[in-house]
Amino acid sequence: MSGRYEIRFAGSGGQGVILAAVIIGEAAAIFEGLHAVQSQAYGPEARGGKSKSEVVISRGEIDYPKATAPDLQIILNQTSCDEFVSETKKGGIVILDDTYVLSVPKADAEVFVLPIVKTAREKIGRELVTNMVALGVTARVLESLDLMKPESVKKAIMQRVPKGTEEMNDRAFSEGYELMKSKM
Amino acid sequence: MSGRYEIRFAGSGGQGVILAAVIIGEAAAIFEGLHAVQSQAYGPEARGGKSKSEVVISRGEIDYPKATAPDLQIILNQTSCDEFVSETKKGGIVILDDTYVLSVPKADAEVFVLPIVKTAREKIGRELVTNMVALGVTARVLESLDLMKPESVKKAIMQRVPKGTEEMNDRAFSEGYELMKSKM
Repeated sequence: MSGRYEIRFAGSGGQGVILAAVIIGEAAAIFEGLHAVQSQAYGPEARGGKSKSEVVISRGEIDYPKATAPDLQIILNQTSCDEFVSETKKGGIVILDDTYVLSVPKADAEVFVLPIVKTAREKIGRELVTNMVALGVTARVLESLDLMKPESVKKAIMQRVPKGTEEMNDRAFSEGYELMKSKM
Repeated sequence: MSGRYEIRFAGSGGQGVILAAVIIGEAAAIFEGLHAVQSQAYGPEARGGKSKSEVVISRGEIDYPKATAPDLQIILNQTSCDEFVSETKKGGIVILDDTYVLSVPKADAEVFVLPIVKTAREKIGRELVTNMVALGVTARVLESLDLMKPESVKKAIMQRVPKGTEEMNDRAFSEGYELMKSKM
């Protein structure tokens, strides 16, 4: 990895974007020996139910903890898409959910539109695991860029999810991983 | 509030310090109309199972998101205590748990040693709600400093905890609030 890699998850409240970013931070630090800073900034507009969370990973210490131009954005609703897509780093990657993002903006980045929510709903039967599908997608991106092993993300998930839900979350993660693997 | 107020929760993995800080951030932004940044930084030492999370709240925009000298620290184990107490802002407040912090260091701050874990275990019957007791303690500190209403913290808790556990978490919060109210 050359320097820092910035990831942002964005969606609506309830889509679990904070947990997704926490898990990537823990995967990076605990299972890959990297530095990571995970954060969410809220202004008074937080009342609107928008939710955003970021994680910066790096081989070295991280001076500035917020994402300035995310290398990778995973965006799960239209409002967040409208607000955030343009901030993607030039040449970066944007993943959009095809259920809640209907208008796909132009971006100076590689854009993938994937059935993340639909996979959670239809393959796992629980929209609740949308963030785990998104983590599978993210894990494949990070693997293909040689930043992190999918196994590290999976281990971090297993440390975080409630006992008894491991198998469901693991399936959701694997479905997300395969979704992205068919693209890159 | 004059400027920013920095809060750090620290303990071992599994004590729920990230969720505690997320809830304070959401209480501040969603129910008090404040700005908030919540973050956790991990270095390679994250393998040790130490866990730390921070939230900065402010009436205005927050330029630097990390806590530099926390105004308030809530510390739930000895390792974190040894590492972090000295970073407390001069004249700030330190809350220590009396089960896991046995050696209480000198600090240029107001130090309270409270039965947080014990309250979770004995009054609620679940050590799992340690972070909710800690949030009750925190809510009382923030109330007494006129920074936030306890009701805002409680509403943020209710948005975050799993369905069916609201009553238990509410009781843990109230016990923590009363613990601190007997002191300040």
